[in-house]
Amino acid sequence: MDFVRIGVIGLGNMGTSHASYIHKGDITGARIGALLEERPARVAELKQHYGDTVPIFENEDAFFQSGLIDAVLIATPHYSHPRLAKKAFAAGLHVLCEKPAGVFTSEVREMNEAAAESGLVFSLMYNQRTKPIYQKLRELIQADKLGKIRRMNWIITDWYRSQSYYDSSSWRATWAGEGGGVLINQCPHQLDLWGWLIGKEPARIRSFCSFGKYRDIEVEDEVTAYLEYDDGATGVFITTTGEAPGTNRLEVTGTKGKVVIEHEELSYWQLETSEPEFNQTYTGGFGAPKHTQIDVSIDQDGNDHKGITQNFVDAILHGAPLIAPGQEGIYGLTLSNAMQLSTWTDSWVHLPIDEQAYEQQLKKRIHASTGKKIAAETTLDVSDSH
Amino acid sequence: MDFVRIGVIGLGNMGTSHASYIHKGDITGARIGALLEERPARVAELKQHYGDTVPIFENEDAFFQSGLIDAVLIATPHYSHPRLAKKAFAAGLHVLCEKPAGVFTSEVREMNEAAAESGLVFSLMYNQRTKPIYQKLRELIQADKLGKIRRMNWIITDWYRSQSYYDSSSWRATWAGEGGGVLINQCPHQLDLWGWLIGKEPARIRSFCSFGKYRDIEVEDEVTAYLEYDDGATGVFITTTGEAPGTNRLEVTGTKGKVVIEHEELSYWQLETSEPEFNQTYTGGFGAPKHTQIDVSIDQDGNDHKGITQNFVDAILHGAPLIAPGQEGIYGLTLSNAMQLSTWTDSWVHLPIDEQAYEQQLKKRIHASTGKKIAAETTLDVSDSH
Repeated sequence: MDFVRIGVIGLGNMGTSHASYIHKGDITGARIGALLEERPARVAELKQHYGDTVPIFENEDAFFQSGLIDAVLIATPHYSHPRLAKKAFAAGLHVLCEKPAGVFTSEVREMNEAAAESGLVFSLMYNQRTKPIYQKLRELIQADKLGKIRRMNWIITDWYRSQSYYDSSSWRATWAGEGGGVLINQCPHQLDLWGWLIGKEPARIRSFCSFGKYRDIEVEDEVTAYLEYDDGATGVFITTTGEAPGTNRLEVTGTKGKVVIEHEELSYWQLETSEPEFNQTYTGGFGAPKHTQIDVSIDQDGNDHKGITQNFVDAILHGAPLIAPGQEGIYGLTLSNAMQLSTWTDSWVHLPIDEQAYEQQLKKRIHASTGKKIAAETTLDVSDSH
Repeated sequence: MDFVRIGVIGLGNMGTSHASYIHKGDITGARIGALLEERPARVAELKQHYGDTVPIFENEDAFFQSGLIDAVLIATPHYSHPRLAKKAFAAGLHVLCEKPAGVFTSEVREMNEAAAESGLVFSLMYNQRTKPIYQKLRELIQADKLGKIRRMNWIITDWYRSQSYYDSSSWRATWAGEGGGVLINQCPHQLDLWGWLIGKEPARIRSFCSFGKYRDIEVEDEVTAYLEYDDGATGVFITTTGEAPGTNRLEVTGTKGKVVIEHEELSYWQLETSEPEFNQTYTGGFGAPKHTQIDVSIDQDGNDHKGITQNFVDAILHGAPLIAPGQEGIYGLTLSNAMQLSTWTDSWVHLPIDEQAYEQQLKKRIHASTGKKIAAETTLDVSDSH
């Protein structure tokens, strides 16, 4: 194979952006093979934009059986991700899927199994994994520079979304359409990075979500979650779409030091003696282990979305290791599901999550939903989105 | 009255420090009238240090009836604060009490009532209220510069204490001796500032304390607490004595802007349009209210402990308004009690706190305690303490 023919599924905000840079030739070894879009009005716009240069399908089966594509990039609403991915694997197509992997973990597990059986390349659009600042933090942790991780706090409240954003699409911010709000739509990146950075998953979660607190929506728009690990580590995750100016501050502390990422800068403090060792030997009462602030060089900004798409194509063509293997999508989704479930049950959620309990609670909300009336569907420019 | 004769009760770490600067004449209008110390070894040291310049009492009643003092400064272990304060009021003496006001709220309420009846001056050593950086934040909030407060997060993990600190005294970090750990001993300042800054008290608290996690102690040395207010505001409070290098970062966000205090600097972002107003009128989908970072000038550092003592003396001599009225001590203590109780009951604590439930739980732990054996009592130098 000299190049990968990618079929983009779903030409909403993100799909349009992906199709555009691939079509422009920004991804080495990739071309647009076809597009799949079911909304007639959007199809008309696409035909006007692409003319005869790209085949546009309105029928899913015809698209999958066209023989025009080697891989799909799925950018449809969340619920459909696992179903479409499984259909692609069955058709022998590699899959790059937008985040989140799905809405609940049981079907994501099935998708992962289908991917494993197929032997095809499966990746998720966790583009923030390509950011050098997070790669550097992961490197420090993996090199044991922070020692045993004890605490992780992420205040990620710069996902500001106005009511007009929510009103741009009828499926957005509904239980039936998205299965959640800020957790499932904006935070999949942070929830993915959370486990990817420290390499462990929590034992239990206690979370406090507010639903439609700042916006006229039925899903959560504010979350504070507390996480506990079997090894004693703790975490706090705070997010909202209702706050301006927001904060994006990640703090990770371990027995050997501390890292803070804020304002796109990484600060690293290294202890001269590890905290437990200092504590064992110090006799002075007041006093703490000495530390040094270490300068850490960070590369230029990563390739973001294009970086993940390029890596996906390189994996198909040259066997490059994936930055964001599809199978890892279940970890962040588990955190998201658990944070909602803990609020709904007003109690701890122990991991692995009780998938049946989660689905029951979600379905209850889908059934109770009154739906959402909007003036008109709008395709938003996501060039500044993450 | 030309000057106030202060009797210092309890010449441990803090009491020694207070007696020292008053004796040196650092407080205008104040002198040391007498000292009260019951530990013979410490009395011997004091006699050697002060010689005949200051009367030293070993008997509490003799001290209170000596006629040598107009006011007391109480710096004994926490449990005794309300009892000694009430005794002082009964003897017609003004009271300046070290933090915390007491260990549980019911006796602090009784102390407050006694203070009110006496008409005497009653203040608490909340010296961090004198810090210009917190005074400035309070000023901004009171001038409505942040609008309605929506979220407050305090990561205050720079209270590092080694095992040798805990081993310096037999009452330290025991249920019977202190009634708690980092909440009752290190954090009273932050728990006081919390409500003093934003001027409201939470409706309910869900908290997660760890007891003896990093140190060989029976009380809490790590806390993550989540607070909810009737008006929808939320808060997170994170503290530990086991972490180095620690963090002291306070973030307060409102409908009109945000303030962050970290590294002894205050950063203030002001929105051009308030968030709710922007949200109501904006139609562009993605997009957020514009903000400006405003330079805020902060005065030189405040007078700290001496500032509170001077203010107390000025209140007695000249009717100066108190910076830290004693009656306000119950607010921070309520937060502290509620954070422990929520952990013990593994559930929400609604305010006002169920005082009986708290006392029952605390007494259970006092009775179950195995006590603490230490090599020798040590007086620590607290010149760097807060």
